[in-house]
Order: sequence, then C-alpha cells, then structure tokens
Amino acid sequence: MREALRANRRQLLDIYATKAAADRLSEEIASAGLRPHIVEAEDLARRLGANAVHQGAMLEARRPESVDLSDIPSRSGVVLVLDQITDPHNVGAILRTAAAFGVDALVMTERHAPEMAGVVAKAASGGLEHVSIVSVVNLARTLEQLGDMGYLRIGLDSEAPVAFADAALTRPIALVLGGEGKGLRRLTKENCDILARLDMPGAIKSLNVSNACAVALTLVHARAAR
Amino acid sequence: MREALRANRRQLLDIYATKAAADRLSEEIASAGLRPHIVEAEDLARRLGANAVHQGAMLEARRPESVDLSDIPSRSGVVLVLDQITDPHNVGAILRTAAAFGVDALVMTERHAPEMAGVVAKAASGGLEHVSIVSVVNLARTLEQLGDMGYLRIGLDSEAPVAFADAALTRPIALVLGGEGKGLRRLTKENCDILARLDMPGAIKSLNVSNACAVALTLVHARAAR
Repeated sequence: MREALRANRRQLLDIYATKAAADRLSEEIASAGLRPHIVEAEDLARRLGANAVHQGAMLEARRPESVDLSDIPSRSGVVLVLDQITDPHNVGAILRTAAAFGVDALVMTERHAPEMAGVVAKAASGGLEHVSIVSVVNLARTLEQLGDMGYLRIGLDSEAPVAFADAALTRPIALVLGGEGKGLRRLTKENCDILARLDMPGAIKSLNVSNACAVALTLVHARAAR
Repeated sequence: MREALRANRRQLLDIYATKAAADRLSEEIASAGLRPHIVEAEDLARRLGANAVHQGAMLEARRPESVDLSDIPSRSGVVLVLDQITDPHNVGAILRTAAAFGVDALVMTERHAPEMAGVVAKAASGGLEHVSIVSVVNLARTLEQLGDMGYLRIGLDSEAPVAFADAALTRPIALVLGGEGKGLRRLTKENCDILARLDMPGAIKSLNVSNACAVALTLVHARAAR
C-alpha cells in the first residue's frame, strides 16, 4: 500500500482507511493527491472479506498495465522470464526479490500465471509497484524477440551441463525460470542461448523457484560487481 | 517420500502405496527394509484427508528427533538459526535451501515455530531428511553456547550498519534469521557477533525470509570458494 502510494505508477482512484491508518499514511496519501474516506475496520472487513489481511486501509487503483517488450526500462539490464510459474506465493516472492535487485521487468505468459493481485501483491510486499510486468501470449516468440534485442537468454535447468557460476554472463540478460516441478518447456529451452544449473553442494539439488531466482540474481549481481 | 526412504534417518514403520507408486518406489522401499501394503488411492484419501497432496503413497515414520547442539554434524561449518519464523511455507523453503547448501543444522525455538510436518515437509521437498533440527527453549542461551563452540554468529538485520558482503566471515558460522515483519528480537541481536544487512540495489530493501536466506548462503558459499 505504502509502496503503491509512493511509486504512484498506477492510476490511483480512491482510498478508504481507518483514522489510525489514514494518520499513519497521511504523507503518502497527500502526495498521491488523494483524500481518504475515513471508515471503520468492520467496513473494510465487509468490503474485502473476513479473511483478507489488511492494515486498516483499502486503496482503489487500476491494475498495473502490461508493458510492451520494447518499453522495458533499461536500468540494471536484467529481466526475468517466468515460464508458467503458477503458485502466487512464489510469483509474489519473485516480484519482491526482483524489485530488491532492481530487475527491469518480469516477463510472463498471460495464461498459466496467477493474477497480479491478492496473494501475489501481498507476497510481493510492494514489489509489484517497482517492476514492469510484460504479459505475453507466446513465450517462445518473446524469447526470440529478446534475442533480437541483444539479451543473453539463460535458462535455469537442473539437468544442464553448464554450471551457472561458470557461464559467461553478459548484459542485458534475460534469466528464464521454469514452473515448479516441470521446469522449462521444450520450446522455451530451444529459445535460450545457454541452459545452466545452479550447482548445489548439498544433498538436495533443486530449490524452490523463488529461492533459485534469488541465488541466480545474487550470482549475476556479484559477477557485475567484480 | 523418496528422500525419506533414501536418507533413512528416521525410524520408518510402514508404507501404504498404490500399485503404481509401489512400483515406482520399489527400489527405495526394498532398501529401506519395508514391504509395502498395496492400497487404492481412495484409501489414502480417506486416511490423509481429501485435501492432502500425495503421490500414491503414505509412509509411517517417527518424527525426526531434535538433535543436541553438541551433536551437530560438522561438514559445511554452517548452521542456520531461526528466530521465531512461523510461516510453514517459509520454513519449508528454508529447509530445502539449507539441504541444497549442505547446511549442518537448523536451530529453532520449540515455541513460535511451525510443526516439522505437513506443509513444512511438503515445501521442504525432502530437505527435512537431510538437515539436523536442533529445537531449543531459549534461543539467546543457545546463541551463547554457539559462541562458546567457536561459531561466528551473524544476524541478518536490514537496519545494520555493516553490509553482509563486506563482513569478515569465518567458519563455523551461525546465520541468524528473524521472523517475517518483526525481524530479530533484542536478546537475539545482543547475542550475535555481527549484525549485517543484505545490500539490495533496487527499490525494495527487504526480501522474503527464505529468499534472504538463499542470498546470504550464496554469499557465504561464494566467499568460501574464492
């Protein structure tokens, strides 16, 4: 919420908040040009459902719009590509980590992906406000386009012969992550320049996909810093 | 399940499986010295509950026993200490990542921690079979003991003045992680040798705790490899 008000990247429509929450967020609300409707906590519970977790405020905003591939900002030179990752907790954690690493965009398929709201937004903990989302129909085609745009497309694949830490990394780079359990689809793999595995020293060889993303981004970042 | 059969670290009592699952796991079942009871999928659903996710088999085993601090195996020289991390998905993902990095043990409080079963075991994806669990009553006292045992105790704290990447790391090392939202408790901080922050280049400064754990373990591992 605070991040949505601060980043102000989506069209913000209205905010309903308890007195306490409105006071807490007063600076952000004012600078976003909104005037809060003061309500009781029960009103929010009625609107959002009894199970919704909120901190006393409800912001009405347009969903962040999908950005065109050609409009990806170029700051870090790193984009993430998700190949049908469906678990909203995982996608949310990936978004949060992406925002923390300053990733330029998250590319994902329109289908076989969770809605960019609710659980995803909550798990992203503000990340949704800072990472451009590129929503595409055909991921293989998009990977081709990223290739044409000069991106090094590197897919994480636990069976790959190359270790990620040994791969030659250049920027801009597109880090491609596969779905839980099933990994990268064949056409996705065929449209990567490199397939690489994360070399884990322990007994278990594969990580939760958001953890794998965090490890890979750490390695990419460390490489740039050297 | 496969990892539980293979690792054979807990006392395995009995296995109930569909014909297909028993065939798929036949090697592991035999080497664990078990003889499967062949059942129908509906029998498992009845025993486990309709919402339980299973792959055609149910293993009865004793819960992994908590290990004494003095019995921590010394392989990687890295242990994780969880200060009241309560979300089972996060603890499960941390266990999986811990197993992948060959972490020696996971130290956690008896209270304010999820049960090492169900959601945790599922999210750990076998990790529970490979990481010793040290369950303690008083975490501050345990950190003191780890200090006496020569462990460098480093706590992750987003407000710390030292960057994790710049901290002098020696092994054995105890990486201390705080609960979602609330971070490390005061007494926990006081019993750390170093408090360090993960320096994130992007707009969001804090990560999901399992992702933070993955980033920190990657940095610890990279340091050792240099």
